[in-house]
Amino acid sequence: MRLIEKANKEALQRMLEAEPVLSDIVPAGEVISGLKGRRILHAGPPIGWERMCGPMQGAVAGAIVFEGWAADLDAAFKLAAEGGVEFHPNHHFDAVGPMTGMITASMPVFVVENRRFGNRAYCTVNEGLGKVMRFGGNDESVLNRLAWLRDVFGPELAKAIRARDGIELKSIVARGLSMGDELHQRNVACSSIFLREIAPSLARTCGDTDRLADSLAFIAGNDQFFLNVAMAMGKAIMDPVRGIRGSTIVTAMCRNGTEFGIRTSGTEDRWFTAPVEMPEGLYFPGFSEADANPDMGDSTIVETIGLGGFAMAASPAVAGFVGAGSPSSAASFTRSMGEITAGQNPEWTIPALDFAGVPTGIDVRLVVESGLAPTINTGIAHREPGVGQVGAGVVKAPIACFEKAVLAIAEELEVA
Amino acid sequence: MRLIEKANKEALQRMLEAEPVLSDIVPAGEVISGLKGRRILHAGPPIGWERMCGPMQGAVAGAIVFEGWAADLDAAFKLAAEGGVEFHPNHHFDAVGPMTGMITASMPVFVVENRRFGNRAYCTVNEGLGKVMRFGGNDESVLNRLAWLRDVFGPELAKAIRARDGIELKSIVARGLSMGDELHQRNVACSSIFLREIAPSLARTCGDTDRLADSLAFIAGNDQFFLNVAMAMGKAIMDPVRGIRGSTIVTAMCRNGTEFGIRTSGTEDRWFTAPVEMPEGLYFPGFSEADANPDMGDSTIVETIGLGGFAMAASPAVAGFVGAGSPSSAASFTRSMGEITAGQNPEWTIPALDFAGVPTGIDVRLVVESGLAPTINTGIAHREPGVGQVGAGVVKAPIACFEKAVLAIAEELEVA
Repeated sequence: MRLIEKANKEALQRMLEAEPVLSDIVPAGEVISGLKGRRILHAGPPIGWERMCGPMQGAVAGAIVFEGWAADLDAAFKLAAEGGVEFHPNHHFDAVGPMTGMITASMPVFVVENRRFGNRAYCTVNEGLGKVMRFGGNDESVLNRLAWLRDVFGPELAKAIRARDGIELKSIVARGLSMGDELHQRNVACSSIFLREIAPSLARTCGDTDRLADSLAFIAGNDQFFLNVAMAMGKAIMDPVRGIRGSTIVTAMCRNGTEFGIRTSGTEDRWFTAPVEMPEGLYFPGFSEADANPDMGDSTIVETIGLGGFAMAASPAVAGFVGAGSPSSAASFTRSMGEITAGQNPEWTIPALDFAGVPTGIDVRLVVESGLAPTINTGIAHREPGVGQVGAGVVKAPIACFEKAVLAIAEELEVA
Repeated sequence: MRLIEKANKEALQRMLEAEPVLSDIVPAGEVISGLKGRRILHAGPPIGWERMCGPMQGAVAGAIVFEGWAADLDAAFKLAAEGGVEFHPNHHFDAVGPMTGMITASMPVFVVENRRFGNRAYCTVNEGLGKVMRFGGNDESVLNRLAWLRDVFGPELAKAIRARDGIELKSIVARGLSMGDELHQRNVACSSIFLREIAPSLARTCGDTDRLADSLAFIAGNDQFFLNVAMAMGKAIMDPVRGIRGSTIVTAMCRNGTEFGIRTSGTEDRWFTAPVEMPEGLYFPGFSEADANPDMGDSTIVETIGLGGFAMAASPAVAGFVGAGSPSSAASFTRSMGEITAGQNPEWTIPALDFAGVPTGIDVRLVVESGLAPTINTGIAHREPGVGQVGAGVVKAPIACFEKAVLAIAEELEVA
């Protein structure tokens, strides 16, 4: 038991000591060395084509056309079904992606360095609302936007970020928490702060008026722009926490739309999975639960570092948006997550809780003992390919994942 | 009594129907027709040179040098003391200014149109932190910044605003309130949103990289940038509320550093004044109450429209900044201000209060009956000219102003 406590203390310390810095944005193939041939990275634990949900299959087909491996969507579906592409989880390649989480070689990815530990993590650029690949969209408008991100936005933003020697992220998150963001379903403050940080650099490094104005307008037009930066940050913070013998701290939570998977520090690269749950939430006009796909995406990495549902108290406005009850009761979610975490983050505080730190470091033992599943704020995708987002809600991580993890750690320590 | 209720209902309705739009930024002399010759507009009710506090005298001297009416500060002090310049309150010229509130002809001012009622109001550009004229600063750095605002920033921002047919302000405030701003001592969200709104236009209308990058950096570097826009908005909202016979609603609250003055709708242009109070707050390192100037500025126009101290519940973080108690108790200020106001603003809501509207329309009768003075969040200036801001705090409007106003309205109605 003393071993576990010591291991978890070390895990929490590594999380709090992280120094995540947005250092670049580059085509994924240039930084993820394994991303070659006809490989597609996806959200969640490992999954093959047959078991993929509708929106993920739709996104895969779009990604295949985007990379030029098939001429159209029909050919792309055929190629995928015949085993013509190889699938891997983002998490196996230092990466994360929201919802379907597609990453292919030519897509630009944010590079977040953890300067304390020297590791890097990657995430694609948030595409905005409406028809987008992360929600299973794959039509011409989706692919054209991705092409613009690849050809214009990525290269221009890269020049601006490099001119600044990177952008320190922890302080942006700290400010965002004091401005009503919880960093999962609400990133309006951090997205705005990011624009403030980058706009003057972008103006200096971009030589073309249209490219500059379009790039500024793209960031300014997307309240969720910062989510993908926060996700890469989360991955960069958690990766150095892996492999502490005996530690019961969760290092990753993610969903592929079919299964929910977690990893713990002490069990390194093993996945503990269970069928993923349906979010409970609010639907956009014209949609209902009948349209909803089960929970999906690597974005739960933000809950893993104490944000999202764990930081609900910072964001009374989001409680209404995700249908989690009255805004004034948002604090109860954060207090509840305090019962399954190893500590608080003194750098990420919540003004409305008199600057208490966000609950940090999910301990699988506490989840199992208390029966309190991690609360996740999430977007809801349509279950069919090509439709897009239909709502937002709250979902619980399946307890079964945590029970399996506890058993595995217990076995491992017993054997030793 | 029925007359007063009806008049106040009309007053509140005019406040809520306002449609404030930032439509331009131009040299003050071009839009304020009375601003000619050696005239200087200042914050608060009318005051002459002799009774002006230290920082206001310092600012006046700086403004004189800035306009070229004297060669240096010594000559400027002499000129002012000898009656060589004419002083008028901003409020007499459709204008407002923070702290010392200096407006002279060549300073650029925001133009906010109330499109529902056709009136316009003006406020200078927020200079940022440190040594600034609004806190009594008057050295070369202060005057150089004002020259840059006049020669570069004002003209560039004007092009961007005109290209957009104005910027609608109520929705920016609504978003700011859901992001922790109370719009007086905390404007970080609205300043960020403003930058998001204007950056793409600025990129398109500004032909020069340095001027563009410097202008973006100036907005991005000042969390209080939006305060002055909000003040012009407040003035534009309240001016059409003047002159409703029998109305006991406050149309202006302001301070010149010596006296606090209010106006009510029913008594039109009369000022009801009382000695201004000292703020209670927190001081920057190296300063204390002994350094503080009494309360100053036209910025209390934001409390007049339900923001600032009245919207404290939206901004737990500011409660700590101004020394108003624990952040979690911020809501008590807003609830208390609900007892002296005519209604709530359904467009400006506070998530943490389950989206209750900000308390709106200060009724002088309720202030006198309840003994609850309007709560104002304010910056604190050093009492000597040229030093600058030394802290931030909360100050109460003197009850005597409200007692005088109640008596005046009673007399007027009795006589009639």
